[in-house]
Amino acid sequence: MIRVGVIGVGTVGRSVVKILEENAAIITARAGDAIIVKRGVVRNLEKVRDLGIELSQNPDDIINDPEIDIVVELMGGVDEPFRILKSALANGKSVVTANKALLAYHRYELQEIAGDIPFEFEASVAGGIPIISALREGLSANHILSIMGIMNGTCNYMLTKMMNEGIDFDSILAEAQALGYAEADPTFDIGGFDAAHKLLILASIAYGIDAKPEEILIEGIEGVTQADIAFAKEFGYTIKLLGIAKRDGMEVELRVHAALVKQDAMIGKIDGVMNGISVVGDRVGETLYYGPGAGGDATASAVVANIIDIVRSGKRSPMLGFNHPLEEGLTLKDSGNIRSKYYLRLRISDKPGMLAQITQLFADHTISVETMLQRPYEAQCAHLLFSTHEALESDVCAMIKNLELLDAVLEKPFMIRII
Amino acid sequence: MIRVGVIGVGTVGRSVVKILEENAAIITARAGDAIIVKRGVVRNLEKVRDLGIELSQNPDDIINDPEIDIVVELMGGVDEPFRILKSALANGKSVVTANKALLAYHRYELQEIAGDIPFEFEASVAGGIPIISALREGLSANHILSIMGIMNGTCNYMLTKMMNEGIDFDSILAEAQALGYAEADPTFDIGGFDAAHKLLILASIAYGIDAKPEEILIEGIEGVTQADIAFAKEFGYTIKLLGIAKRDGMEVELRVHAALVKQDAMIGKIDGVMNGISVVGDRVGETLYYGPGAGGDATASAVVANIIDIVRSGKRSPMLGFNHPLEEGLTLKDSGNIRSKYYLRLRISDKPGMLAQITQLFADHTISVETMLQRPYEAQCAHLLFSTHEALESDVCAMIKNLELLDAVLEKPFMIRII
Repeated sequence: MIRVGVIGVGTVGRSVVKILEENAAIITARAGDAIIVKRGVVRNLEKVRDLGIELSQNPDDIINDPEIDIVVELMGGVDEPFRILKSALANGKSVVTANKALLAYHRYELQEIAGDIPFEFEASVAGGIPIISALREGLSANHILSIMGIMNGTCNYMLTKMMNEGIDFDSILAEAQALGYAEADPTFDIGGFDAAHKLLILASIAYGIDAKPEEILIEGIEGVTQADIAFAKEFGYTIKLLGIAKRDGMEVELRVHAALVKQDAMIGKIDGVMNGISVVGDRVGETLYYGPGAGGDATASAVVANIIDIVRSGKRSPMLGFNHPLEEGLTLKDSGNIRSKYYLRLRISDKPGMLAQITQLFADHTISVETMLQRPYEAQCAHLLFSTHEALESDVCAMIKNLELLDAVLEKPFMIRII
Repeated sequence: MIRVGVIGVGTVGRSVVKILEENAAIITARAGDAIIVKRGVVRNLEKVRDLGIELSQNPDDIINDPEIDIVVELMGGVDEPFRILKSALANGKSVVTANKALLAYHRYELQEIAGDIPFEFEASVAGGIPIISALREGLSANHILSIMGIMNGTCNYMLTKMMNEGIDFDSILAEAQALGYAEADPTFDIGGFDAAHKLLILASIAYGIDAKPEEILIEGIEGVTQADIAFAKEFGYTIKLLGIAKRDGMEVELRVHAALVKQDAMIGKIDGVMNGISVVGDRVGETLYYGPGAGGDATASAVVANIIDIVRSGKRSPMLGFNHPLEEGLTLKDSGNIRSKYYLRLRISDKPGMLAQITQLFADHTISVETMLQRPYEAQCAHLLFSTHEALESDVCAMIKNLELLDAVLEKPFMIRII
């Protein structure tokens, strides 16, 4: 049994507690040990309810509790969590944090202090996307040539809306604030500072370079207007706020700014609140990682993954991911029971009454047509192209067999499933 | 010093040897120990040259060598590598393999036999994309709701060409064979079997489900015609060969087939020989992983990453990825020295001679214009929108300062960098 203490039980902290509880069976099967949250620390005891864990207001209740193995820091800020996590490490506790500001300033000191004690921070960059482990483990054979990422969902949401709907910056900012995508004081997001913190963390893992926010170029998206959007569209660009790390000889460029990006580049296709990070390695070429960069559950997914990693690390991660099978095993579904929408192509002889005969077969098999196209095809022939509403695979297969028996159907009907 | 033996020195094997040699400094810094290839085993000694490693034809030379710590299996096939890797594990050697067919049939037996001995296989699915570790570690907090992947570059190349260029299946197959993207006997790729092997591996990690290729629905792309492509385009779809794993209650669907996919879905945007895998978790939502699914260097990137993981696993992976700093440290580039293309927006009073004055400033700062647009903007005003060829950031900043001094320039020029 592994015990966790959570410092800061806001949106992400609540999700961490809930995931560990609600997904406990699969997490235990993967981690090889049960994981429970023993205690949470919050600023305001009145605000947190119905979580079923002990709460207090003093971080010492966690970092000095000999039963707690892993400290999860989700309080935000820089100086206070730095002090608290140093004490937690001094007490031999493993640490998981989502705090990018803390790491933007103190990551090398924390690495030094942690030594062999696990200190993980997957959630600090791009929320639920496992980009830290992709860079640190997955691409470790490579010299990283460049990292180019959409690392701030607020900015990407605003720029996407400006591109697609022609709305001006101030209106879209007000809308993003109303939706909760942007803070009341949005400077940290739209000024590029949030993205810069994340970029610095990735740059350390890619290049081993220690840089502080004050040392790099940081610009936001405040100046972008519809005149710029119109120009971008005219020349096949879209506008994105990018964090860029790029190696050039023995130097590394680190910069955050709005950029015109080709619409057909993968990074140009990432829209709305989503994050995406393109990494170019000298051997692997370009890989790209896409997903939700924020939100309680998505961020907590990364926090809990780190907790599982730490629990697993005593032993090795099991080869196929499960330490022991889930109690109730899953079984393979018979392919006849698949439900899908279907596309069907029939080649038919173009005679009266054919269409009625064919559509009757659809009705007989309770398969409902969504769209139909008939197109002439060679002399006296036509292509009949159908898409269906959701149907059962076995019904569709049976209907195809019956369609094939019709004189008017000139070749085996061809089917593609629709996603 | 960790010693590796490579069984099967073809395209991928050669790349493994070269990466370990050419990227040795950064690999040692990341792994915390030097890694060398001690020996390779090949079928035909005549065919392998200039690699600077000892070669022989007998796998026993590797699996019985007490100095070799890690056996890398890149020979392909099923029965022979299964036999060889069992012996290697019996001798206590860690294993790294890229062999998807072997794993499609024997992954659970191999997990059982390996026990606590590291057995890694990142390269077996989607080449250079770290999708195994994303599923096994990055998303471990989640119940996986679905996996939907473009896992065969040959099929995706052919379908993309059929969509974009209206070429028919047989012509594009011949072209793919000429380019080396498709084998002389292409059945394994275009029949969906290669994708099915990969899908089974991912399904085990997501669901712990043991299934064999014979048990699941596998269809290829052979029947797709331009009539289907035309229908797809008409309704906003593209056609992709997908490997799909989907949970439905206590059942799991596993299937490989062509599918109509919405053009604006992320998975629909993955074109050409690239692979992409979308994973939906119950907590994280959708994440997607994109990159090269084949090729010697990309596949070897994953093989070497696994080797580094195994070397690291004695100790823990260092927090920021480097066990010790690279000898020659990288430094931060001064932002004035960045080179980029630039977009500039000027608001000017619309008077004769203005354009000459402004373009002269471009010339004075040796900044070359690529495109220019002038558009009327309110009374007596115009927007001048420029894009430049690559230029030096400090030159552009200096020019902007000088532009601002011109009477005709009515507000601070606005600049966006172009990627």
